[in-house]
Order: sequence, then C-alpha cells, then structure tokens
Amino acid sequence: MFSQDINAMLLLRRCQSLTRLAAVGTQGHQAAPCFASRAVRLCSSSREDQRSYQRANWSANWKRIAAGVLAGTGAVLTYGLLHQEVEQADAGLPTTEKSSSLPVFSLDEVSKHRSLEDGVWVTYKGGVYDVTEFVPIHPGGNKILLAAGGALEPFWALYAVHDQEYVLEILSQYKVGELSVEDVKKQDDAKTSDPYSSDPRRHPVLRVNSKKPFNAEPPPEILTENYITPQVLFFKRNHLPVPQVDPASYRLRVEGLPRGALTLSLKDLKTRFPKHTITATLQCAGNRRSDMNKVKEVKGLNWGISAIGNAKWSGARLRDVLQAAGFGPEVAKWARHVHFEGLDKDVAGSAYGASIPINKAMNEDGDVLLAYEMNGENIPIDHGFPVRVVVPGVVGARNVKWLGRIVVSAEESGSHWQQHDYKSFSPGTDWSKVDHKSAPAIQELPVQSAITVPADGAEIDRSDKTLTVKGYAWSGGGREVVRVDVSLDGGKTWQVAQLRSGDKGQPDEPSPPPGRAWAWKLWELTAPLPPDADELEIICKAVDNSYNGQPDTIPPIWNLRGLLNNAWHRVKVKVTEG
Amino acid sequence: MFSQDINAMLLLRRCQSLTRLAAVGTQGHQAAPCFASRAVRLCSSSREDQRSYQRANWSANWKRIAAGVLAGTGAVLTYGLLHQEVEQADAGLPTTEKSSSLPVFSLDEVSKHRSLEDGVWVTYKGGVYDVTEFVPIHPGGNKILLAAGGALEPFWALYAVHDQEYVLEILSQYKVGELSVEDVKKQDDAKTSDPYSSDPRRHPVLRVNSKKPFNAEPPPEILTENYITPQVLFFKRNHLPVPQVDPASYRLRVEGLPRGALTLSLKDLKTRFPKHTITATLQCAGNRRSDMNKVKEVKGLNWGISAIGNAKWSGARLRDVLQAAGFGPEVAKWARHVHFEGLDKDVAGSAYGASIPINKAMNEDGDVLLAYEMNGENIPIDHGFPVRVVVPGVVGARNVKWLGRIVVSAEESGSHWQQHDYKSFSPGTDWSKVDHKSAPAIQELPVQSAITVPADGAEIDRSDKTLTVKGYAWSGGGREVVRVDVSLDGGKTWQVAQLRSGDKGQPDEPSPPPGRAWAWKLWELTAPLPPDADELEIICKAVDNSYNGQPDTIPPIWNLRGLLNNAWHRVKVKVTEG
Repeated sequence: MFSQDINAMLLLRRCQSLTRLAAVGTQGHQAAPCFASRAVRLCSSSREDQRSYQRANWSANWKRIAAGVLAGTGAVLTYGLLHQEVEQADAGLPTTEKSSSLPVFSLDEVSKHRSLEDGVWVTYKGGVYDVTEFVPIHPGGNKILLAAGGALEPFWALYAVHDQEYVLEILSQYKVGELSVEDVKKQDDAKTSDPYSSDPRRHPVLRVNSKKPFNAEPPPEILTENYITPQVLFFKRNHLPVPQVDPASYRLRVEGLPRGALTLSLKDLKTRFPKHTITATLQCAGNRRSDMNKVKEVKGLNWGISAIGNAKWSGARLRDVLQAAGFGPEVAKWARHVHFEGLDKDVAGSAYGASIPINKAMNEDGDVLLAYEMNGENIPIDHGFPVRVVVPGVVGARNVKWLGRIVVSAEESGSHWQQHDYKSFSPGTDWSKVDHKSAPAIQELPVQSAITVPADGAEIDRSDKTLTVKGYAWSGGGREVVRVDVSLDGGKTWQVAQLRSGDKGQPDEPSPPPGRAWAWKLWELTAPLPPDADELEIICKAVDNSYNGQPDTIPPIWNLRGLLNNAWHRVKVKVTEG
Repeated sequence: MFSQDINAMLLLRRCQSLTRLAAVGTQGHQAAPCFASRAVRLCSSSREDQRSYQRANWSANWKRIAAGVLAGTGAVLTYGLLHQEVEQADAGLPTTEKSSSLPVFSLDEVSKHRSLEDGVWVTYKGGVYDVTEFVPIHPGGNKILLAAGGALEPFWALYAVHDQEYVLEILSQYKVGELSVEDVKKQDDAKTSDPYSSDPRRHPVLRVNSKKPFNAEPPPEILTENYITPQVLFFKRNHLPVPQVDPASYRLRVEGLPRGALTLSLKDLKTRFPKHTITATLQCAGNRRSDMNKVKEVKGLNWGISAIGNAKWSGARLRDVLQAAGFGPEVAKWARHVHFEGLDKDVAGSAYGASIPINKAMNEDGDVLLAYEMNGENIPIDHGFPVRVVVPGVVGARNVKWLGRIVVSAEESGSHWQQHDYKSFSPGTDWSKVDHKSAPAIQELPVQSAITVPADGAEIDRSDKTLTVKGYAWSGGGREVVRVDVSLDGGKTWQVAQLRSGDKGQPDEPSPPPGRAWAWKLWELTAPLPPDADELEIICKAVDNSYNGQPDTIPPIWNLRGLLNNAWHRVKVKVTEG
C-alpha cells in the first residue's frame, strides 16, 4: 500500500504545505520559523532520507518545540495566518474532493499512527489525514494528540471553533488517503450525538462568546445593578459540555492522604461539616480581553468587561473536609497543592482540572469552600451543580465546577489548564518564544475595575449638567479595594468615587477582616459635566489595601493569551445638545 | 496686662495674617480656603464679637479641620506658599525685632495657653508667640501642640527642618510679647543639649537626606552589588534621635493580654523562644519620592531609589511571644491589632509607634520577628539595637526599632505615624481636602522595581555593542516577583530580565513557600545596544505572582505625601562615540 508513487505524492504535498509554512515564517509573523529550513531540506533530498531526517528531527526537536512554539494552547494567530495563507495559495491546489487517486486505509491501520514518532493520523468524513506537521501549530496545542489514530468528529463536536470553512481547508492539505467503506460505516454507527445537547437553557440577555462550550456574560449596564449578581446573570465560563449529575448518587472522592480515599455523598457534605457562607467575587482571567484584542490579536474568547460576578456561596470548608480525610502535621510536611477535578470531560474522558497551593486550602482565613449553594439556592447547573470549589480571591479557573475529585499532592496539577493555559507573559513574548514553564499558574488576581455606565459611545445630554459614572472594582487575594479614582478628562484630573458593599440605599455588608475582602465594591461618581467638552474620555482606576493600582495602558501588559487585562478602563462618550 | 490696646494690636496682627492666608487660599493653591471668610469676618466686626466668634468657630470647626486641612503631618506645600507670601508681603510689615512696644509675659502666663480654646502660645529666644492660627497649617500637623505653653527650642532641635530663615519669618508674624527676663534665664539654664549628640557614626558613602533625625540611603549603583545588603549600606530611616539602650537592663513589655504584662529581658527573648531567621526586604514608603517630587512638590524626605534593603533577620517570632504572654482563642475573639512602641522619644516623651493587624502577627506564615540579629550580628544601633520588629512584606514604618512595648488591642495604634502619616491619597486630593480617616494605614506595599545601573544621565560607549541593565524588584505581602520587563526604547518593546535570589555566580536561595516571598530579587539584562540611537530611555517594570504590575507613569499616582511611588522606573542614557 505504501508504494513509491504514493509516498512521492505525499512528499510533494508535504513540501507544498511546508513551503507555505516557511513563507509564513519568513514574513516575520514568527508563526513557526523553524519549519522554513526543514521544508527546504525535505524538498531537496531523497524521500527516504527525508523521512528518516524528518523522524530524527521530530524526536530531537520535539521537546524543544513542545516547550516552545506549540506547547500549550497553540496559536489562533498562527491559525489565522495559515488560513489567510491557504486562501491566498489555494487557487492552484487540489481541493478537498480529490480523493479517487488516494490509497484506501483501514481504521486499524490508521490507529497505528498515534504519536509524533509514528505519525499522527486522523479520519474525517471518510478521509484519512496525516497531521503530524500540523501538531506544532495547532491552536489547541497538543490536545490534538487525543484524536490521533481515530475520528476527528467527536472532538470537533466538543470544540465548535472547528466548525468553520477554513479549518476544513487546512485539513485538506494533509489528506493522505481514504478510509475503507466498512470502517466509514462503523464510524457512522458510532457517531456521537451532540455532547452539548443536554446543556441547560440560558437567559437570553446574556452575550454569548461561545456556544459550545457555553461562554457568556451579561450586558455591563445591568451587571452592576445588583451587589449580589443574580445566578442567571452571572457570567458562564464552561470549558466542556455541562455534565448531568444525579445529586442522589453524587460522590466526591478525597484522595492522596495516608488514610486512603474518603468518599462523601452530597448529604455527607451538607451534614458532616459546618455550613460556611462567604460573599465572593469570581472573575475570569480573560475578563476585558476584547480591549486587549484591539491592541494586537490574542488567543481566547472575546470577553467584554462582564466576565465577573459577585455571589453568596455556602458549603463546607475545604479545610474541614481535608482534616476529616486525614490532613495533619505529617501531611503538612510534604503536601504543597490541592488538585480539583471536574466531572466535565472531553471525549477522551479527561476531566477539567486545576490546583491551588496548600496554604490557601488549609489557612483558617483562606475560606475555600466546597460550595453547594449560590445565593441561598442549590448551585445552578451551569455553575457546578451539585458541588463546586470556591477559592475566593483566586482566578475563576481554579474554582472547579461539578467537582468530582480532590487530591492532596506534593505537585501542582498537571492539567492542561494549570500548565499550559491561564499563565501570562511579557508583551515581547510571542508563540514562537513562549515557555509555559517560565510563568507561574495564575492564582490571585491583580486589582481591577471597570466602568459599566455610561457605555462606550453613549451620548450625554449637555442639559443634564451632571454625569453619573458607575462601575465595579475588585482585587484578588482578599485585598480590599480602598479607593476608585475617576477621570472625565482622559486622566488629567481625578475625582474619588463613592464605594459601596451593598445594594444602593441598603446598608453595606460588614467590613471583612484584613486579607479576607473577597467581594467586589460597586462605585459611583456624580460630577458636573465639564462645560465645553464635546467628547469625554472617562477613566477609572482602583487601588487596593496593598496600594497596588492598575497600569495606565494595555500595550505594556499585552500577552499572547489576552489574560489579566487590568489596565485603566476607558470609555468615550459624546456630549450632545439634547 | 491684657489691655484693650494690646488686644486691638493683636487683633490687627491676626487680621493681617489671616488676610494673607485668605489671599493664598483664593489664589487657587487651596492652602486653607476656609480662612478667607473667617478673616473677613474677624476684621469687620467688633473685637469681642470676633474673639467669641473665633472661639466658637474653633470649637465647632476643630474636629472637621483637624480631620481635614491640618490633621496629620500638614503641608510643606502650604509652608512653601506661606513662605513665599511672607516674602512678598513683608516689605511693609514689622520685622522680628520690633519687641520694645510689646507686653512682657511670665512663663507661668504663657503656660496657660496650651489649647486651641485657650490659644496656643509658645516662646522662642525670649519672645512670646500666639500661634493659634498657625496650628491648622503647620506642616508637622498638630504635633505643634506638644510645644504649646512653653519653649519651641527643644522641639526645633528635634526637627531640624525648622532651622531655616523663613521659619523665623513666619514665626515673627505671631509675636505677641516678650518673656520676662527671669524666665528667659530659667529657660537658658534648662536648655536641652543636642538630642542627636549620641547618634552613632555612619558610613560616609551614604547620601544623607536629613541629619536630624538621620535619614540616608546608599548610592544606587552599589545597592545591588549584594543580594544581602551590608548593615552599613542599609538605608537609615529614623524619625527621632537614636536612643541609647543598655542591653543588660533592656526590658520588653508585652501588654493588653488578660494575664497582665509580661516583661522580657534580652536574654529571655534569646533563650525562651526558638530563634527564627528570615531574609526580608524592608522598604520605606517614601522610596523614590524624589521622582514624584519632580511632578509636583510633595511633603517628605527626598529619597532616591535606595530607601530599600535586604537582610537576614533573626529573632523570636512575635507569635511565640504573644502566645507565651497569654494570647489564645479568647483573646482572638476581640484582638484586632498589635501595637509596637519604640524607645525613641520626642522631648515630650512620646514614643515612635505603629501597629499591624492581628492576623499578620499571629499567622503561622506571617513570620513577624522580634529581631535581635541583622545579617548574623547584633542589630546595629541605627537599625534598632537591641530589638526591632521585622514585619516582612510590610512598609518599613511598622518595623518598629528599639522596641520597648507591645500592646495587643482591639484598636489600631493611635500614633501620629499610623493615623496621620504613611497613608496615600488620590492625585486630586490636596492638603485642603485631605481626610486621613478616609485612607487605610499603609501595611503591605505594592510591587516595585528600579534600575540601579546604568545611572540616569550616564554615557554609554557605542563600541560596547551591548548594554547591561541591573536593578532590584520586590513586592509586599510575601508576593514573589515572577518577571521583570526591561525596555530600551521608552516602553515600545520589552525584554525579560534574568532574576536572581543570591549573589552573582552563587546559587539562589531556596524558593520561598507561596505567600512568604519576603526578599527582593536582583535582575539583570544584557542586550544589544540599539544601533542608531543617540539616547535611550531605559524602563523597568516588575510583575509579582498575583500578576500585579506597576503603573506606567507617576502623575496618576501622585499623592501629597509623595508615598508609594511604584511607577515604572526610567533612566535616560546617552550613547557616545567612545
């Protein structure tokens, strides 16, 4: 089956695709410059040499490349560049439907190609594709290997980003054969149904950033109408399909402790441990990414300013549960992290996961909860029913939902989301240079604030004489926001906003003890409208009780994943004659 | 003695001085605008009415004014404006030597004027001065009241800032009489010797910001030569004369706990409690004030970038000492703060003082020490011999030296330095608006970094081809610095510096547990010299593990006391042809 002819053709195809990649690389986009020289060498030497060179090259370079260009979540940027490249170059190339001359493979044969050493093959709608070269530039990182040796469909069903024409165009470049008719039938029979079909219904007011997995945020102007964010308006940030959990049969496993695993039912959690309630703000690390995206394209969901919400969470303290499971002075000697694993899984069965440092978990003032209530009701399905972790002061990503497993460990979680995502880098670091090991996993978040009213581009009636500006402010690590400064003139002069920790006209919540200010503050400033201005640039910036403040501008904190945009928030409004 | 004539003359004097203040106020300097209307009313109604109005006004306004214009450390700015005003307006006014026509007072009479209600009188070199109206604008705040009813000399000896011509000019405006000859003689006999005469000798390399009290910092370029700052180079920040403490008779009192006071000798501290060592960086809240001063004048010592140092501190844990003194669960219910009182005192006998929150003091990971060693030797006299508090991660001002007393309390320290100093405000807040109660006492410091090499204005030889930039980076609250970005082009592009936690070429100190990174990092970047530039603007900015970063610019964090300047540090260098 592996005839000279076919191999020659495959090589030609590979050379074309690599040459194209090389072009991308040398255009200075740094998509994958290391491919340039490889492409030239592959195309200029004999096939066997090339293949052995290619193999050797892969093994030798894999570690370096894995830690560099490709490791982690990859590059939407690269994806975009490739797409453009394909569009520009495809005119004279064979289209997806060029299959008749290609060899036929059995699923069994395809399944032997599951690694970079053996090649990475996948099937899609009856076609067979050797995507080995694509692995380093896959925007989803090496998670693509999960699909190696089998069908792409169930994975693409999980990640709807693949449901686009240019993704198929990229794939077509890697076609090496057809799947045998019998195997196509088998795959059709086994075809998974939409894993998102049982996702809950959501409120139509939400602005949807991604349907599958579901990610959405409320409109800013209604976000700060309530000090406690109603469940339906609380931003939804799902990484995978929402799992359906039967509360009666739900079991939480606590592992890694010398006594062996402890298994707890929902009733156990509710009855064996004191119920503890905190008001805590959760924020996605990608909140305000859309503004960072405007500076220079980044990879990630295009969140506005509302990937943040404040709720009352009730549940058992993680500390109490770990102590019941055998955490004591002996364990404290070696334990450094607590892992959380969700019941939300991808098609390969790997669960969402994260970890937090042990001192946050065990500190009496850490207030980490295994929460079963949100705002006095059962946690809604989208927010982790029946049990989620709430790690106050810490990035949303560690507040694992649909909690299935807790593991006490000497090591940090090896999860993709801990090691290769949710980390930030210098603005000078691009996908060709990024070393995920060089940055710590995001835990505590920096000080943040945003203007929810007026909206950017709003028109203000000059006859109103005064202007009211509203927003939220919060800081990670239990640091309390102590001041919000507002400027109506682009940062030249500043006024101090009124802060509150409750609904308007209601008494504030009691002041939290130092280091345990988990909840946001809402703020408001009513000031005279500057008399002659036709346009105002309104800015807010917050200061927390460590006197950390926000950076003035976005470019110096730009990072390739668009995380942690906490630069001053700016909106421009027009002053009109009513 | 209080004849109509004299009172009329005093009133005239007061009217002159108030009118002048009013002018300052209405010039938009906002030195003390509330005086304007008072001055007009005082000068336009009858004397008795005026005096009673004045009294009523003082009582009614005292609280508000005390919390506003004057409370705390006052206004060098106002001082400066007044000075200017006096210089401009004095041409036609009586000079200091206009005494012959003034009444003679006894010291006994002067001593009756010790409050705003009874008037605030002081004596200076045989003159008697009614400084009641000056109290609100005294740059040193209401500490001026400590001198009320007696001689200024001993206080001015403490605070050498008074040793300037314009201070005398201001004082002269308030002269109301002469001190009786006998009392002048008494005062001369009792004249205090220089309270600073027993201060220790200091290293001549230090750059002195103030001699009395002694405040000095090392030159930046030698600051980062050592990971552990040698004692002699460690910045000195004294608020008062250095006390001479005999280690043999030294006693530390621990108070406020139900068992009564615990008294500990130095030997007790060393033998009854485990010795604990930490490496911790201390930084003055005024570090880098000189750059803030350039934006707009602020009050305070003109520190460069070296009011920071890193040392190994050894001593007993505060936590252990408090537990030995009876701190337990019952105390934890009401205790909120731990006060520290130094043995350094002003002439009125009031000691330097500060407090920290109880959770920092008692947390197992808080690492607060009653330190008796610095870098393996007895703590030097300038740094608190024989015992100082080391509160790692917290502003220098709470690391009380020459520790005499510890008090566990439900309240924060009432000390001047806790309530009316070491707080920061919005850039829009000036001395006329400041309300010290509105801001929290500085505890944890924000993330900081600075360039120590090259120096601002240095010349770089183009033939060197590369440039090495060095500096330090640190963050408060035990947050570890995880990255330092350096720009050679004024912030357009950024490179990541190498960090180290040890001396160059030596192994790094072991990584601290999360939340206990008390020590700075030194950093270095060697990069190609940009080929065509004649001048480089070099910038550094640090990021800590809460991903807090530094603000881009100083004006938006400017505050009237010039505290907490943690904007990007910038130096400009010239590239020359060798």
